[in-house]
Amino acid sequence: MIRLAPAGQNMAKKKIAKTRKTVARSIGSAVSKKRDRETLAKIGTMGRSVVTSSLAMREPFVNIPMRSISNMRFNKRRRILEMGSNTQRRDLFNLGQSRKFMQTLLLADGCKQLVEAEKTLSLRGMYYMSLHTIAGTKEKTFDNQNESDPILEDLEVALGALREELHVFAKKAGTMVGTITIVDTGDEIDCRRMGSGGYSIPSIVEPEVIQFSKCEADFVLHVEKNTVWSRFNEDRFWEKHNCILTEGGGQPSRGLRRLLHRLHEELGLPIYCLLDCDPWGHYIYSVIKQGSIALAFESRRMAVPEAKFIGLRAADYERCELSDDVKIDLTDRDIARARQIAAYPWFKDRKDWQREIKRMLANGFKMEVESLITKDISYVTDVYTPQRLQAEDFLD
Amino acid sequence: MIRLAPAGQNMAKKKIAKTRKTVARSIGSAVSKKRDRETLAKIGTMGRSVVTSSLAMREPFVNIPMRSISNMRFNKRRRILEMGSNTQRRDLFNLGQSRKFMQTLLLADGCKQLVEAEKTLSLRGMYYMSLHTIAGTKEKTFDNQNESDPILEDLEVALGALREELHVFAKKAGTMVGTITIVDTGDEIDCRRMGSGGYSIPSIVEPEVIQFSKCEADFVLHVEKNTVWSRFNEDRFWEKHNCILTEGGGQPSRGLRRLLHRLHEELGLPIYCLLDCDPWGHYIYSVIKQGSIALAFESRRMAVPEAKFIGLRAADYERCELSDDVKIDLTDRDIARARQIAAYPWFKDRKDWQREIKRMLANGFKMEVESLITKDISYVTDVYTPQRLQAEDFLD
Repeated sequence: MIRLAPAGQNMAKKKIAKTRKTVARSIGSAVSKKRDRETLAKIGTMGRSVVTSSLAMREPFVNIPMRSISNMRFNKRRRILEMGSNTQRRDLFNLGQSRKFMQTLLLADGCKQLVEAEKTLSLRGMYYMSLHTIAGTKEKTFDNQNESDPILEDLEVALGALREELHVFAKKAGTMVGTITIVDTGDEIDCRRMGSGGYSIPSIVEPEVIQFSKCEADFVLHVEKNTVWSRFNEDRFWEKHNCILTEGGGQPSRGLRRLLHRLHEELGLPIYCLLDCDPWGHYIYSVIKQGSIALAFESRRMAVPEAKFIGLRAADYERCELSDDVKIDLTDRDIARARQIAAYPWFKDRKDWQREIKRMLANGFKMEVESLITKDISYVTDVYTPQRLQAEDFLD
Repeated sequence: MIRLAPAGQNMAKKKIAKTRKTVARSIGSAVSKKRDRETLAKIGTMGRSVVTSSLAMREPFVNIPMRSISNMRFNKRRRILEMGSNTQRRDLFNLGQSRKFMQTLLLADGCKQLVEAEKTLSLRGMYYMSLHTIAGTKEKTFDNQNESDPILEDLEVALGALREELHVFAKKAGTMVGTITIVDTGDEIDCRRMGSGGYSIPSIVEPEVIQFSKCEADFVLHVEKNTVWSRFNEDRFWEKHNCILTEGGGQPSRGLRRLLHRLHEELGLPIYCLLDCDPWGHYIYSVIKQGSIALAFESRRMAVPEAKFIGLRAADYERCELSDDVKIDLTDRDIARARQIAAYPWFKDRKDWQREIKRMLANGFKMEVESLITKDISYVTDVYTPQRLQAEDFLD
């Protein structure tokens, strides 16, 4: 990812020598895990390139793949969002780029320390870890976390290493129960015996942290909200229908998406999503299925192109004989958002999705999964979801 | 809580007969759990009073204890916020109150159905369950959830039954690990073997749902954010220091507060709070310790007046030799908020807290727990917290 710059400039030898030593130490350190060794090697390669070009009196720079919408494309065969091949040069000797260049190397060094220490840190923790005032100046390395987060994403794409591989995590969100036993950092967790609370899904769910040990489940049912999840758990839906039940607290976290991806890829489980009948529900489905624009570089390891949308459907208002009371008027913003989503490349050629969004717009209202409670407390678990599963009545 | 009104008015006999029958059924139903029987009895009493006054041709009304700040008082002996004895009449035959009167009975009936069905519902679920258009009119029972939530709180205080006893839950938030085994709805959960994810704390943690089966822990350490919690869990702080580790994702949920209260009251565990050095951290501590103004009626079952504040302290900037980089300027709002908190009746007479807030204001900056990462990734778990525990250096 790093290429040597043609032109050269003088640099203090002392600084170079120090950098070289750091790089050498990182390569020499004994890290037990294979993944960690690979990550350290990647960081080492980046560091070595900078040192090499510096020693050769050439301008050091790193190439950062572009994460803008112009560099995204929808891979029709794989049916996922992917990042294109455009990159952006980040030079040390360019006033507009040198700050970002140094921040990039600073965070790369922070990640190296983390991996070597076999510890993980939150995004905010990484900001603090790399925060200092540069000696002899009043210049801080970062003004705030809004400056360090995007640089970490740059590092991910530049190194080709997921944030999780760099030992950086975000707020965790989401819960799981069901007919599966997992091993989380050595602890065997039987998700059939997790009571009313459930297993809290961590932010990092890479195979080195979480292994699947015993799974009888036939599928995964993913719901949007933890209150709906509680209804399904209380009715022991996962036991009656032999499945895994997950929730993501709204917009699914990376940890949850990666877990769904792994459950699908490694255990071959179908993923069914039960979300609200509104643009927000459709968008959540889109992110789980194809990936998000902001994180397109990780779609291959996060997206589940085969995920199915089980409901709510715009037609459910009539099919389930719901009352007028459950209608929530679409706002102008909802309407604009729905049209945007209908125009997504992966929805554009799906007749069923075009019909679905058109019908919602014609209805003029949205509906929440909870609206099924107006039929009966457990209508969603006793009737709605089993019927859709039985009939294989999904949107794809 | 319900008193008969002196004056009477005519009511259709059919309606009264129906109400009577409903009340009779609720009293007659066989509910296995003692708590549920008590809750049903309370709802039954409320319903019967309304029926009795109606049959006697008197105006039916319910008395709702007032939840305004004017009806709160700080109980100096118990050191918790309590609700005073002021109540507000809610009449059926008063144009300004009849809507709320009917909503109150409607939700009481909904809770009765829930308890009888031995199911629980979210606040949003309750809204949907009680939502309908009144026959022959275009009037909805509730315009939105903002109308039903306060009525549910009214019901709690009027019945003297916690929301949890009415089988209503909120979004769950918070995670737990540590040297304790609990039983959650029949499932034994060993919190020593919960991996990196942890046990997700449910919204309802009443003794009928969660029992403590085996606990060796010496104390509970509660941290504000789940990212900080992950640091403590990864470093297996709870194992080294034989404790329980909880987090509440910011402002602690009712479920979490109730759980801390139970761990303290039933198992005699001290509760230590590690929160940010800012007005928000101080407020979270205040809520855990004394209760919140909005929910003062439940302080006796939620608050932990003996909870201790372990840090961060304003003096830590010097004590821990932190760099200028971790300072976050206090905003005008922070300053106003800090002064408000200093004037709380339960902080007013605490010299140590007055000193603490004064010092923070003199500093002119706030600090986050994560700022300790600038010392070392695990400074907070290896040095800071053990030192404070050892020295018993707390704010009370």
